[in-house]
Amino acid sequence: MSELRYRVIYGDTDQMGVMYYANYLRLFEAGRNEHLRGLGVTYFKVEQAGFFLPVTHASCRYRKSARYDDLLTLKTKVTSAKGARIHFHYEIFNEKGDLLAEGSTEHAALDKDGRVTRLPEEIVDLLAPGGA
Amino acid sequence: MSELRYRVIYGDTDQMGVMYYANYLRLFEAGRNEHLRGLGVTYFKVEQAGFFLPVTHASCRYRKSARYDDLLTLKTKVTSAKGARIHFHYEIFNEKGDLLAEGSTEHAALDKDGRVTRLPEEIVDLLAPGGA
Amino acid sequence: MSELRYRVIYGDTDQMGVMYYANYLRLFEAGRNEHLRGLGVTYFKVEQAGFFLPVTHASCRYRKSARYDDLLTLKTKVTSAKGARIHFHYEIFNEKGDLLAEGSTEHAALDKDGRVTRLPEEIVDLLAPGGA
Amino acid sequence: MSELRYRVIYGDTDQMGVMYYANYLRLFEAGRNEHLRGLGVTYFKVEQAGFFLPVTHASCRYRKSARYDDLLTLKTKVTSAKGARIHFHYEIFNEKGDLLAEGSTEHAALDKDGRVTRLPEEIVDLLAPGGA
Repeated sequence: MSELRYRVIYGDTDQMGVMYYANYLRLFEAGRNEHLRGLGVTYFKVEQAGFFLPVTHASCRYRKSARYDDLLTLKTKVTSAKGARIHFHYEIFNEKGDLLAEGSTEHAALDKDGRVTRLPEEIVDLLAPGGA
Repeated sequence: MSELRYRVIYGDTDQMGVMYYANYLRLFEAGRNEHLRGLGVTYFKVEQAGFFLPVTHASCRYRKSARYDDLLTLKTKVTSAKGARIHFHYEIFNEKGDLLAEGSTEHAALDKDGRVTRLPEEIVDLLAPGGA
Repeated sequence: MSELRYRVIYGDTDQMGVMYYANYLRLFEAGRNEHLRGLGVTYFKVEQAGFFLPVTHASCRYRKSARYDDLLTLKTKVTSAKGARIHFHYEIFNEKGDLLAEGSTEHAALDKDGRVTRLPEEIVDLLAPGGA
Repeated sequence: MSELRYRVIYGDTDQMGVMYYANYLRLFEAGRNEHLRGLGVTYFKVEQAGFFLPVTHASCRYRKSARYDDLLTLKTKVTSAKGARIHFHYEIFNEKGDLLAEGSTEHAALDKDGRVTRLPEEIVDLLAPGGA
């Protein structure tokens, strides 16, 4: 599990005065990136090795509002990684520790030609839920 | 059910050359707006009447990629509307008719003070899945 | 000169209740795309022909606010196109005809390897300010 | 002058593989926020005190590309602050120290009713170019 801090900017909010719902998915991506970095690999390098991990499903439950200038904490973990499929789970908290949102993404592993492919064992081992 | 056309811009894409996954949720919102307009009400007026419909859950299944300059068709419908909760369902197609993505959003009805409230009958009737 | 209509969504606004300043540049891009399409070429095809037109300078003067659900009209024109440089100019109006914003972008012509290159005569002729 | 670090995410890039030009303006905003915070005030508090600082002009010169996973450094300073107008200047560098982009924004000071107003002396003093 890894943690990322993020300060909400005006550009993240909408006229309801809260973070626009699509922007939580941007934050999830930042969480994935930092989670991988924390495991000793970066998604940048995964791509350079010829693998792509496009999102095949995403969902988010919005519980409370993230507001302008809130300093958010995003907790990211891998919940499953096997064969050609990876699942991430995310939780977003504000400074008071309120759970604002939680979500998940599912990723398919593709090769350079866009074909579904099994991830190398070393990446699967690295990502394994118990692996960090 | 209503339809909206949308032309994918560069700003929607990411370096994988496809529409970034969070941007489908922007498109869903545009679909909701036009769906309501087609029913004879606008979300703008719903807010002016003192009701807010924040998203409480969103999900999207990504099947095929939307690409730069694709002319997308978004089909939106209400799948349920009762009490203080509304569900929308969305499908996105490209010009060849391929289903690229489908998703759903759940909305809570709130009053001006942020309290959960029942929607007025006239709005529920308007939104009712069989109502359009 | 070409015109594009755009309906402001919630996702475009910020908590000041108006379109976020960066999003005008997204709109400018949509305007460029449609302007080129109107001239009989698309930026998609320009890229396929091996030319890229990255933005090297952008500016915007914000005069009045674009608000949620406003139906905007964006007017786009080429103000100069020669050698390896193109300039576009944009004006955004609301339904009442108020000029909300105006801006410009400058683009360099690059080849596939990222080197500055002269645009083919046929493209320059097409884009020439007097050409449409 | 203040510094902010920012890691480019996939969602910031476009299919040219570089940060989309509008997203630099999001980054500028984050820089303004942190600059004010460093001066001992936050824009959040400026608004609570009844002042708004909407952007009236923005420009950006794009020199080199910011790429996915680049760790950017944004340098922000106030270049002028008097009466009802503030100017910020921004520079963005990559990890190698290359200047990728520089830009500026101009802000009008408005009161709660949207009227142009002079900023209180204490805020002007705080923002004064020599003041930090």
